[in-house]
Amino acid sequence: MTGTETGAEIARAEAKPSTEEAAMPEVVFQVDQTRSMRDQVVPGHNRWHPDIPAVVTVRPGDEFRVECRDWTDAQIGNNDSADDVRDIDLTLPHMLSGPVAIEGARPGDLLVVDILDLGPVPQQAGEIAGQGWGYTGIFPKVNGGGFLTDHFPDAYKAIWDFHGQQATSRHLPGVRFTGITHPGLFGTAPSPDLLATWNRREQALIDTDPGRVPALGLPPEPRNAVTGTATGAVAARIAAEGARTVPPRENGGNQDIKNFTRGARVFCPVFVEGAKLSAGDLHFSQGDGEITFCGAIEMGGFIDFHVDLIKGGMEKYGVTTNPIFLPGNVEPRYSEFLSFIGISVDHERDTNHYLDATLAYRRACLNAIEYLKKWGYTGEQAYLLLGSAPIEGRISGIVDIPNACCSLYIPTAIFDFDVRPTAAGPTRADRGRCAVTS
Amino acid sequence: MTGTETGAEIARAEAKPSTEEAAMPEVVFQVDQTRSMRDQVVPGHNRWHPDIPAVVTVRPGDEFRVECRDWTDAQIGNNDSADDVRDIDLTLPHMLSGPVAIEGARPGDLLVVDILDLGPVPQQAGEIAGQGWGYTGIFPKVNGGGFLTDHFPDAYKAIWDFHGQQATSRHLPGVRFTGITHPGLFGTAPSPDLLATWNRREQALIDTDPGRVPALGLPPEPRNAVTGTATGAVAARIAAEGARTVPPRENGGNQDIKNFTRGARVFCPVFVEGAKLSAGDLHFSQGDGEITFCGAIEMGGFIDFHVDLIKGGMEKYGVTTNPIFLPGNVEPRYSEFLSFIGISVDHERDTNHYLDATLAYRRACLNAIEYLKKWGYTGEQAYLLLGSAPIEGRISGIVDIPNACCSLYIPTAIFDFDVRPTAAGPTRADRGRCAVTS
Amino acid sequence: MTGTETGAEIARAEAKPSTEEAAMPEVVFQVDQTRSMRDQVVPGHNRWHPDIPAVVTVRPGDEFRVECRDWTDAQIGNNDSADDVRDIDLTLPHMLSGPVAIEGARPGDLLVVDILDLGPVPQQAGEIAGQGWGYTGIFPKVNGGGFLTDHFPDAYKAIWDFHGQQATSRHLPGVRFTGITHPGLFGTAPSPDLLATWNRREQALIDTDPGRVPALGLPPEPRNAVTGTATGAVAARIAAEGARTVPPRENGGNQDIKNFTRGARVFCPVFVEGAKLSAGDLHFSQGDGEITFCGAIEMGGFIDFHVDLIKGGMEKYGVTTNPIFLPGNVEPRYSEFLSFIGISVDHERDTNHYLDATLAYRRACLNAIEYLKKWGYTGEQAYLLLGSAPIEGRISGIVDIPNACCSLYIPTAIFDFDVRPTAAGPTRADRGRCAVTS
Amino acid sequence: MTGTETGAEIARAEAKPSTEEAAMPEVVFQVDQTRSMRDQVVPGHNRWHPDIPAVVTVRPGDEFRVECRDWTDAQIGNNDSADDVRDIDLTLPHMLSGPVAIEGARPGDLLVVDILDLGPVPQQAGEIAGQGWGYTGIFPKVNGGGFLTDHFPDAYKAIWDFHGQQATSRHLPGVRFTGITHPGLFGTAPSPDLLATWNRREQALIDTDPGRVPALGLPPEPRNAVTGTATGAVAARIAAEGARTVPPRENGGNQDIKNFTRGARVFCPVFVEGAKLSAGDLHFSQGDGEITFCGAIEMGGFIDFHVDLIKGGMEKYGVTTNPIFLPGNVEPRYSEFLSFIGISVDHERDTNHYLDATLAYRRACLNAIEYLKKWGYTGEQAYLLLGSAPIEGRISGIVDIPNACCSLYIPTAIFDFDVRPTAAGPTRADRGRCAVTS
Repeated sequence: MTGTETGAEIARAEAKPSTEEAAMPEVVFQVDQTRSMRDQVVPGHNRWHPDIPAVVTVRPGDEFRVECRDWTDAQIGNNDSADDVRDIDLTLPHMLSGPVAIEGARPGDLLVVDILDLGPVPQQAGEIAGQGWGYTGIFPKVNGGGFLTDHFPDAYKAIWDFHGQQATSRHLPGVRFTGITHPGLFGTAPSPDLLATWNRREQALIDTDPGRVPALGLPPEPRNAVTGTATGAVAARIAAEGARTVPPRENGGNQDIKNFTRGARVFCPVFVEGAKLSAGDLHFSQGDGEITFCGAIEMGGFIDFHVDLIKGGMEKYGVTTNPIFLPGNVEPRYSEFLSFIGISVDHERDTNHYLDATLAYRRACLNAIEYLKKWGYTGEQAYLLLGSAPIEGRISGIVDIPNACCSLYIPTAIFDFDVRPTAAGPTRADRGRCAVTS
Repeated sequence: MTGTETGAEIARAEAKPSTEEAAMPEVVFQVDQTRSMRDQVVPGHNRWHPDIPAVVTVRPGDEFRVECRDWTDAQIGNNDSADDVRDIDLTLPHMLSGPVAIEGARPGDLLVVDILDLGPVPQQAGEIAGQGWGYTGIFPKVNGGGFLTDHFPDAYKAIWDFHGQQATSRHLPGVRFTGITHPGLFGTAPSPDLLATWNRREQALIDTDPGRVPALGLPPEPRNAVTGTATGAVAARIAAEGARTVPPRENGGNQDIKNFTRGARVFCPVFVEGAKLSAGDLHFSQGDGEITFCGAIEMGGFIDFHVDLIKGGMEKYGVTTNPIFLPGNVEPRYSEFLSFIGISVDHERDTNHYLDATLAYRRACLNAIEYLKKWGYTGEQAYLLLGSAPIEGRISGIVDIPNACCSLYIPTAIFDFDVRPTAAGPTRADRGRCAVTS
Repeated sequence: MTGTETGAEIARAEAKPSTEEAAMPEVVFQVDQTRSMRDQVVPGHNRWHPDIPAVVTVRPGDEFRVECRDWTDAQIGNNDSADDVRDIDLTLPHMLSGPVAIEGARPGDLLVVDILDLGPVPQQAGEIAGQGWGYTGIFPKVNGGGFLTDHFPDAYKAIWDFHGQQATSRHLPGVRFTGITHPGLFGTAPSPDLLATWNRREQALIDTDPGRVPALGLPPEPRNAVTGTATGAVAARIAAEGARTVPPRENGGNQDIKNFTRGARVFCPVFVEGAKLSAGDLHFSQGDGEITFCGAIEMGGFIDFHVDLIKGGMEKYGVTTNPIFLPGNVEPRYSEFLSFIGISVDHERDTNHYLDATLAYRRACLNAIEYLKKWGYTGEQAYLLLGSAPIEGRISGIVDIPNACCSLYIPTAIFDFDVRPTAAGPTRADRGRCAVTS
Repeated sequence: MTGTETGAEIARAEAKPSTEEAAMPEVVFQVDQTRSMRDQVVPGHNRWHPDIPAVVTVRPGDEFRVECRDWTDAQIGNNDSADDVRDIDLTLPHMLSGPVAIEGARPGDLLVVDILDLGPVPQQAGEIAGQGWGYTGIFPKVNGGGFLTDHFPDAYKAIWDFHGQQATSRHLPGVRFTGITHPGLFGTAPSPDLLATWNRREQALIDTDPGRVPALGLPPEPRNAVTGTATGAVAARIAAEGARTVPPRENGGNQDIKNFTRGARVFCPVFVEGAKLSAGDLHFSQGDGEITFCGAIEMGGFIDFHVDLIKGGMEKYGVTTNPIFLPGNVEPRYSEFLSFIGISVDHERDTNHYLDATLAYRRACLNAIEYLKKWGYTGEQAYLLLGSAPIEGRISGIVDIPNACCSLYIPTAIFDFDVRPTAAGPTRADRGRCAVTS
């Protein structure tokens, strides 16, 4: 690795063993979990902008570790109240670690990103998400919302305890599963042109219904912008122009693809010199769709990357609008699923929509929730479960006019009872409740 | 089994062996593949209506076989021209076998349907789809369309040869895969009320843009209606009122869920006395979404069912709008995938859409097609491949405003070359072409 | 295909459709299940010998079907008595179909054998194994024996009913599983030298304890030899010299590898001109080890092969003593197992054996049987189950002197109760009994 | 947890967060990797004996961490010489951590042991195995030997670098795989009677050929015995009587079952008050059989356990001679294998053995080695690979007299070239060599 653009020197661990190779990845971005991301020795960032300075430069072939805060910068506590979810300040997320520059990366290249390992904060129990625990939240409609916000307009929360690669929750008794641990968000920096495209494109959408609650999109927001090691006018410009981190975009970003797990290889488009890779929003587990918005089991922790380059790879492979990837090969091995179907009909309003997969998946989620309620879970508990457990969401039929058909697969083994339908009917039990607001 | 409602007697195979149990399922719906479905001894049907007479009554616990025509009633040939796809008469599909009444089934029950086995026409090679071969078609925009019809407005076709559970195509050299064989369509009969709801609901959608091409939906169409063993006024009413079979609905229907494969158990809502189970549209294989409309590998063949009842199951389990199911456990074991991502941005028009999973999946499909073109496939070949191979389509992120994120997984093992990206770039080869129109 | 060596003409199905390719494999060996293998129009064989005439010659690249009798030539009935197992004539098995000559195959080549499909006798219920049912037998110690013959010296039987790819047994209530269907036995013909080696090598072993019960091995046995289409002196020589079919050998043979299932590709050494491929002993399912001797679910049926050649492949790939293979990719997807361990200690005699994996696996089997007895199964039922269900048997540790360690994995999903250990203890129930002798 | 029997106080981490639950497991056995196990503050042990004092007492339901040295107490270095393997002192292994007493455990109970997580030494690169690297060794015939010691009588070694859950080796270029990380050895303490049985039983075997090289078994050996916190006469008695740790036995022990990975649940027989659980011999990866003796990728590290009790479980479930278990559900997802077969024939001596699975598996290993040599690997490299990669070893047929049949499955995806046979033949390349002796 070489010096960084900003002079924020990261001392390299020179003390390698007197052996041929050492395999422990160097930590190129360190996080002190007792402090906000803005107060770290080398702060991270929570906007996308080409001018956020790289904190370190690595070489193709390098392996390195990035430490991360949870996406909210630790606004959520390990307790039984959802007030912190209700009151969260959404100008702060996502708190990202990086950017890491890759030597020799040029616009048009593909940055090969291997996810070697990741997990919660190692060897620490504590009060910060990732220190032995994580959380799933349902955001209120007036502050973020979620996929089923019309059905669940208030704030709710579940706390999860980690047991190795498994999780349990006092707010969801009867459930235990192995997480598909992954980063919700990582990507390369946008070029100035690409950034301008994003801001224009999304503002045009917002302008179609500017007062909508929840909002159609989030424009740049200087308040609470954290701009890495940039200072002065550069920092001010980043704060003013920087794209919000919520959506996935051409650079990757908040794709929330649960299959970016250990062993995954991702090919990211490069838009700026050095590529500038940033990452954060680690998830201990997540269901496809991450439907509660803060739907995964959120945590701080670490991620170990290996990087390489395919020169000119965007043109070579026709990769222009999104990364491509090879999923990880160490997912939990579940083989039996209880599955729910939804079609693009709004049954409450008896209205048909045209090949609307979003609605179809929403209906599949609602169908699953109705089913789980028959066993004694509250609707909120079921909603939290669908967001966080390793469920699969599939687009099954997308051409059978007028009804799109989506399906949702819940591994039956995550329950400590037999959740399958039988002639005897479901066994309703007291299954407690999740954290609610005061 | 008991006599049928219509007197259309199906002779039971009485010659059971003089042993305790015989396991070969009785054929309760027979098909002579040399004749149209309307000319069978006991004809099937191609509309949904409560008054289509059951052809046989079976008991809970029974196992039985249903033979099927391909969904088009054999309009497509094993040749190198897509003219038959271009000129298809879409008032004919889907040709269904049944209905089979289940003794004791009442509205409000769940009909338990086990898919024991299914496959092409057994022991026959021939000219009819399912006799050793099947097809995938891209429908023209003016006659059906498909998921990418704005990008591929013309008709195309690929013929697949069956090799046990594997398929190859002279129109897609370099590809060989194991099929996830399943019925595209099966379901119970609607009640009169439910049927009326469908027709009203879908007409309201059609009325929003009645001249659209392709159409937003398909209203009842007396022309070419096949009404089973009904005759006279009953047949005329069925033809006039019967719902078209294209979309999935509350009764199941054309769900095109590739995981309804061997070993699957499906819990179908019952809306009429006897449930009246019908099935058809067998697929040798299909990718999630069935994106080319006639996207699976289509065939005639057989399907073996076992049925049972959960009395009052709709209320017991909260199943009101769609079936629920346990997927089959004999899918092909693919473990490495090349994956593509799409977000709800129309890149061609530089326009953002709000959490539109349909668009996101379309973008993932288009990204996959661009990639495959770099290896020498035509766009049409790649499109046909995505519809028919066992690819998975997932809703990855559906809350990250404004961009829904979908992903598409192609098993790498289906290619006879290494399809993964490397620094060397793709190996472009002459990979022929699919069947086109004259 | 060309004419055969023997003039036993197999009429080719000329009536191919007028289309480019037909995919239904031609039946090159037909079986009338109402007759003994020796009374077929073209009889099969039950000895290995280079001079058994090929019944047909196929070309590299051909696909073809071979029909099979069950291994005993239908000595076992679908009833509740194990007398037929007790009294079986073991000079008859295995009844093989073939040999099929492959044009151009020469000694030193590798014959590439793809298993495209296989299954029971299609579309028939009846009295012959494979016509909707199969069986598992425990042979008595005095007539064949088995892996646990010292613990289970008598004859027992279980009849299995086929439900698509699943099996149940009235003799093993509470169990249902998907079969890993495969041929127990297939292989190429030995050269005269190889045959002589086998006979000499095995006789030397037999001679170390000629009176042992069960025998150490089986020498050539003219009685009941079926020699295909050979006649006269050739038939007499085959009967006198032909190797028995029980063991696996250099040519493949009775390997009983459950992973030779749909999609498998096997590379068989070629020892004679034309390779002369024969097959039989179809299994609907089998556990690793096939421990009851007649341990699989035995049946007649069909197998579809594709063949090709790697010229000089034995030398190229160092394949000298056994086939190599790529297992099939459509095994049932079980993911949770209850596992048992055994080590090379004879606990009954309190004696240690040195790295004896056979003993270790026997102990793992006995441990599993003791466990299953706690739930109400008889030991014989448990033994039959271990032979026939898709259990896995692994060599876990083979170097930790003096104790080899083997392990046995039973899929928990095959039981209709939760078979895992809990604090509550097992639920003992009346689980009937298997077929016994009169 | 309560005080320990020995007064060796382990300070409990009292500083739990002020939240409802903390999930980071407490470290109940700490290891300073810079020191020998005998010089730790609380030393471990390398013999099995009921009188080795427990170092801590935990309660049923507790989760806790145990840190481990590699099995040799760090005799092997990260270098390119196999001299350390050649000269290893085999009176030292296995260095175990523990024993941990479980409150309330009584003889006859089953100790439920969940393996929550395990891995190399966290967050450290260094010179000790487990600090970013591990090793696989072939022991010389005169000092330990191995499964193929007659074919490979000398010492060899491969060093593996860890990349998250993947491993590569400079001594095995072209190979990269995900480890099935597991403890080679864990178990409960024997009762005095059981210990006496072991020593008598194994001595009787040794006495059949006392001078054999390698030895048939290892009797108690006072030299280099490490006896935990025992001192004086107790320590002397442990050293004199303590069973060696090499074999698996009734208490579990060195079972080397690769499926004891994350998520596994093991039910161990309890023979003494408190059960006294000890563990060590961590493996980053291992092939079935661990055939090179030091066949896994050996390392120090940590293991997180959860424990519980089934009172009287040995009788309830018929568990008398070995643990039973549910394997872990996060194995690497490999789906395509190249498989080799072996039968119980000594081809070199042209001799048949009777149903000898040990020989059959040895032949399968030798066949695999011959195959890999055709690609340019040395035999030693191939042997090291089979011991360490996630290969599966199965007992396929164990009743087909006289030939047992075993099979060995190598995941094809671990090679960076296509290792499958084709008509083109193998691509021989220079693949370096492993570490050899000077």
